[in-house]
Amino acid sequence: MDNYKLINEHLKKIENETVPQVSIDCTVFGFHDNQLKVLLLSWGHTDKWCLPGGRIFHHEHADEAAVRILKERTSLEDVFLQQFHTFGDSQRYKNESLFNTLSIDPSWLSSESHLLKRTISIGYYALVNFEQARIRPDEFSEACSWWDVKEVPELLFDHNNMVQLALKTLRRQLNYQPVGYNLLSEKFTMPELQRLYETLLGRELDRRNFQKKMLSYDILERLDERKTGSANKSPFLYRFVREKYEEALKEEILFGV
Amino acid sequence: MDNYKLINEHLKKIENETVPQVSIDCTVFGFHDNQLKVLLLSWGHTDKWCLPGGRIFHHEHADEAAVRILKERTSLEDVFLQQFHTFGDSQRYKNESLFNTLSIDPSWLSSESHLLKRTISIGYYALVNFEQARIRPDEFSEACSWWDVKEVPELLFDHNNMVQLALKTLRRQLNYQPVGYNLLSEKFTMPELQRLYETLLGRELDRRNFQKKMLSYDILERLDERKTGSANKSPFLYRFVREKYEEALKEEILFGV
Repeated sequence: MDNYKLINEHLKKIENETVPQVSIDCTVFGFHDNQLKVLLLSWGHTDKWCLPGGRIFHHEHADEAAVRILKERTSLEDVFLQQFHTFGDSQRYKNESLFNTLSIDPSWLSSESHLLKRTISIGYYALVNFEQARIRPDEFSEACSWWDVKEVPELLFDHNNMVQLALKTLRRQLNYQPVGYNLLSEKFTMPELQRLYETLLGRELDRRNFQKKMLSYDILERLDERKTGSANKSPFLYRFVREKYEEALKEEILFGV
Repeated sequence: MDNYKLINEHLKKIENETVPQVSIDCTVFGFHDNQLKVLLLSWGHTDKWCLPGGRIFHHEHADEAAVRILKERTSLEDVFLQQFHTFGDSQRYKNESLFNTLSIDPSWLSSESHLLKRTISIGYYALVNFEQARIRPDEFSEACSWWDVKEVPELLFDHNNMVQLALKTLRRQLNYQPVGYNLLSEKFTMPELQRLYETLLGRELDRRNFQKKMLSYDILERLDERKTGSANKSPFLYRFVREKYEEALKEEILFGV
């Protein structure tokens, strides 16, 4: 394997400089072509996929580690990133099989290395702008790509569970926080916002009711511009009023749709 | 200190048999006299208080560890217990000052012991029946008692943050899950349920609107019994229909109050 040395160096760094037996995994959501996408990495030379993740350096806050990992994979920083669950099954992660798939011999590792032990993973989910993300694989992966949430393959470890629970948390979030700022373009039409919500919820919503409710939350500004080039009559463009959006995120009012 | 030997033995057990640098802390809520209570332990011979917590054994699921810790402190098992946040600040926990307050000399610990290093804590919150809980201190504490959430003193480590975030999560939960099964007696009046919600939310609710909404969720059964001894006319007793309550917990419908 070409990057054998690179992987070994990276493993040594993890072994020595990070909190043992704890990892971070990120479920990164993007929205494109009316599809909710999730970012996956291919593992080594295998055809197995997994979520982007990493470790926490000794003097690093877990949340800072998540920001760093997200930035390394997407180049993005100022995004919605939130912890949603810590995965603590003692059987969830088997490092030996992991080393096998990388076709490397970790003989330099002592049998006491924490890299060979169970790992508790802190799960984060992120909402990022699909167009702005410049995605790239990490030291252990060959490829990095967006997958439609509906077509996620069988993932390594318990990563399918992570995606499902991240999705459940995101749907739950629609009840008490606005969603859309990081997922849509700066300016969008009401039908575009509705399609985002419909995609996240996996069901259709009544057009008039949706518009009425969304406007009642006082987080949207209707611009004096219309979207041109639509099949139907040009719909108005909206944007989120950033301060009011941030306030609603913080106050967690009841957001029925 | 009388239990010097006991504490040392317990520390050795933790040192050898648990996942390093990871702990669990539980915010245990009870409801009594229209007050939301939280369970606190006094630390050693000091007047400092903290949340009940513990460590995860090598082959134990983190969630199982939380169930065990809760049972050790309250004798209760079948309660609402849920993870809400993992606290990952590298500065949140200083074990040396902790050993000082226990007035023990942990000289048997190697300088490499994980007990002297930063600890990431997985936070859980529990809703328990105040009347049924038989509370008791742990190896490090002298006392164990219930405190009104509004009167929680300055706690050790970041435990005040934990209580605040647990409370925020519980309030959020009112939006998408029913709450009350573990907090109220089996049979309760509508005013009692309303007072629970008002206490959790920290604000008054309209009586008629509350009753109407609660009944619309189809999780309550009105009994052919009335509560006697009330100042006003005897109000009807209700109970939760367990299967429908469980279904609502799972489905996470929008619960506006």
